[in-house]
Amino acid sequence: MPDYRDQCIEYIRRNLPGFLENLSAFLKIPSISTAPDHQGDMLKAAQSAASILSNSGILKTEIYSTAGHPIVYGEWLGAGKEAITVLVYGHYDVQPVDPLDLWDSGPFEPVQKGDYLFARGASDMKGQVIAAISAVEAVLKMGTCPVNLKFLIEGEEEIGSPNLSAFLEQHREMLSCDVALNPDAGMIAADIPTLVYSLRGLAFFELKVIGPDHDLHSGLFGGVVHNPAVALSELIAGMHDENGTVTLPGFYDSVRSISPREHEELARLPMNDGYFLAQTGAPSLWGEKDFLPAERIGARPTLEVNGMVSGYTGAGTKTVLPSYATAKISMRLVADQTPEEIHRSMQAYLEAKAPKSVRYELEFLGGGPACATDPFSPYARSLARALETVWGKPPVYKREGGSIPVVADMQKILGVDSILTGFGLPDDCIHSPNERLHLPTWYKGIEALAHFFLNLDKASEAK
Amino acid sequence: MPDYRDQCIEYIRRNLPGFLENLSAFLKIPSISTAPDHQGDMLKAAQSAASILSNSGILKTEIYSTAGHPIVYGEWLGAGKEAITVLVYGHYDVQPVDPLDLWDSGPFEPVQKGDYLFARGASDMKGQVIAAISAVEAVLKMGTCPVNLKFLIEGEEEIGSPNLSAFLEQHREMLSCDVALNPDAGMIAADIPTLVYSLRGLAFFELKVIGPDHDLHSGLFGGVVHNPAVALSELIAGMHDENGTVTLPGFYDSVRSISPREHEELARLPMNDGYFLAQTGAPSLWGEKDFLPAERIGARPTLEVNGMVSGYTGAGTKTVLPSYATAKISMRLVADQTPEEIHRSMQAYLEAKAPKSVRYELEFLGGGPACATDPFSPYARSLARALETVWGKPPVYKREGGSIPVVADMQKILGVDSILTGFGLPDDCIHSPNERLHLPTWYKGIEALAHFFLNLDKASEAK
Repeated sequence: MPDYRDQCIEYIRRNLPGFLENLSAFLKIPSISTAPDHQGDMLKAAQSAASILSNSGILKTEIYSTAGHPIVYGEWLGAGKEAITVLVYGHYDVQPVDPLDLWDSGPFEPVQKGDYLFARGASDMKGQVIAAISAVEAVLKMGTCPVNLKFLIEGEEEIGSPNLSAFLEQHREMLSCDVALNPDAGMIAADIPTLVYSLRGLAFFELKVIGPDHDLHSGLFGGVVHNPAVALSELIAGMHDENGTVTLPGFYDSVRSISPREHEELARLPMNDGYFLAQTGAPSLWGEKDFLPAERIGARPTLEVNGMVSGYTGAGTKTVLPSYATAKISMRLVADQTPEEIHRSMQAYLEAKAPKSVRYELEFLGGGPACATDPFSPYARSLARALETVWGKPPVYKREGGSIPVVADMQKILGVDSILTGFGLPDDCIHSPNERLHLPTWYKGIEALAHFFLNLDKASEAK
Repeated sequence: MPDYRDQCIEYIRRNLPGFLENLSAFLKIPSISTAPDHQGDMLKAAQSAASILSNSGILKTEIYSTAGHPIVYGEWLGAGKEAITVLVYGHYDVQPVDPLDLWDSGPFEPVQKGDYLFARGASDMKGQVIAAISAVEAVLKMGTCPVNLKFLIEGEEEIGSPNLSAFLEQHREMLSCDVALNPDAGMIAADIPTLVYSLRGLAFFELKVIGPDHDLHSGLFGGVVHNPAVALSELIAGMHDENGTVTLPGFYDSVRSISPREHEELARLPMNDGYFLAQTGAPSLWGEKDFLPAERIGARPTLEVNGMVSGYTGAGTKTVLPSYATAKISMRLVADQTPEEIHRSMQAYLEAKAPKSVRYELEFLGGGPACATDPFSPYARSLARALETVWGKPPVYKREGGSIPVVADMQKILGVDSILTGFGLPDDCIHSPNERLHLPTWYKGIEALAHFFLNLDKASEAK
């Protein structure tokens, strides 16, 4: 007689067509959170998520309205008060589909070609949400899940989750849990199971450099007035030294150093120069010489100009000496940097370096701290074993260069760490035309998540 | 019995109301060269100029059509073959009037308030054209002008005179002369008669710095790819050293040095730090420490960023690592620099300094050489004496920081130097709302030009 675990896996394999149908139905709803003309679709997608949840065995579901798009909550607490509670995070909203003419099929008409399912949201992240619910369905239908389960599925991730932190504050009790599972992170490649254990934070600034009080004729005044576009360029140029190190005073003061063990793990990642050159098309790589590319992306803070503008930018020429120049500058932060201390670094830099021949205005547009979790916690080890069971090899441990604000919010408001994984691939074209999901990887993902829930039985000892 | 010169001045004083009427009628024609809906007004303005010319005694006038706006030509050759021929340059076109709501009266409804006449073109340069014609009228009506006179009044100065050089080439014989008078330069102040003896040239470039082959997510790739906005800033920052000196290789090789006598003359100009601070509103001046502001503006080449743009420049934030960044860069040249050698300087700089982590494209958008004339030529001395007669003090000698392409074109095509003067003031708001003309200065200007034509009698000896 097959044991519970085997029965779950068999259930999954038997029910793949049904899981795929759930996903297709979910993908047909054009739940573009940023588009005002898709308001009705947002509620429809929330209702669809709630209904798939209850069909899976998460019988208690509720749709909460917010100031923006509704939030879906579901729970199954059948494991009892002593058991671990896992909160599964997801989002049902998707990115816009422009440019529509670059799609080979309708973005909301899911179509399977070979190993891929094409549709907006297939990878980011309706596919991941359905993978998690499908795993839960197998575990709930074939026995009694060893852990309590809660689901939080929001509709505003693609627009910055403006109403999520208030919801977390208001429902702190309802959402209380031991660990969060966030399957919105991806894999490095289809054959490399990936566990993400840190995310970078952000600090946003707008810097305006002002010279003359109006645009000047470059002939009549060129030579006696500091050109603000030049002055801004000089300030930006001074923000890195020749090694790609950021020069803002105190910028690295709170940066947690990389342990030798972590360095070894990151060195194992197949994210070498060739990987990044292929992904970006850049002529050569750049950055801090003393760190691996994977470290520079995930474990080191960076400073980027996201945009800048000054003077005349139309066709042809105009002999203007512009009155001002602006740049949008943001930093990716790592533990334990905070946006506030980076703001002070930026202020100190400008106070020291801005020339007297211009004025400047620095606007701090906010941000969020970085997020680092223990990659070898009992919860993370449960996921690692699950991934190894399915892929036949242990996962790689990756620091993610991007930021997922909900992870920091959950840490801050609910006091809970997130386990980050997911079964999307780098070439899934998320946010782009022809978004797709690699189905063989997705099937493996459903099995891995079932193993994860079952493995958490043992993690309970850590509670 | 009053002599010829006295009679001319009396004629001018007696006929000021009529000159002002001519100017008002000329100003009422909205001859905006850049506006497609003003095509009919351009011909009307040309006809008006031709009619004012013939009324003044320049009996032979002709309107030439061009690929763009018509050119007005007039001549009086009564002084005979042995006499000097002066070609008077002018333009009848004006700048657009936007923003219209900042005008206190209609831009094409000339109105006199106190000492000022308000209208588009009053100072730049319909007022100057009418001043020259009025002086000629006095000289022709009161006796026999000692010099031959030719007038060339174009309609495309404000759009870069695209058809003028072809016209000069085609009518070389007709336009042949000993000296050109260009009253499109201005005065430093109402009580400082000014003689401009050099203009700067120009070289235009567009520089594009390209990093990744598409916009990247600043989290996923920030730290391994050189941000093109940062790389462009680094290149721009390196184009000046800490003294404001341009660093492009060979940039100063052909710069004519400033003689001690010229330095003394330029030091006499009331164009000190306070003058430029008041004009620009800049917090402090900037530029080559070893040179006077007036030298930096007129006798030294400069490099300006006229515009730059990269990445996201809308409201709020976007975490993009842009694919490219562009800058419009132009240099003001002095004798004997050429745009072509500056192009080679720019290429040499980029070859030496552009990092391997980005690509770049440099587009050379053309330009023109600087123009320097002898401030103490017999023609210039004739004007200097005329200005001294009217203002009671000798003129200051100024190098103009801007460029007037027609002056270089006339030097190149007709082989003739221009005498540059004019009776506009720095606060005339040319190219801006509420353009105005200081009438007392304008009246003096008419007298000064009459003296100039009469003084040229003596300059004939130099021929």
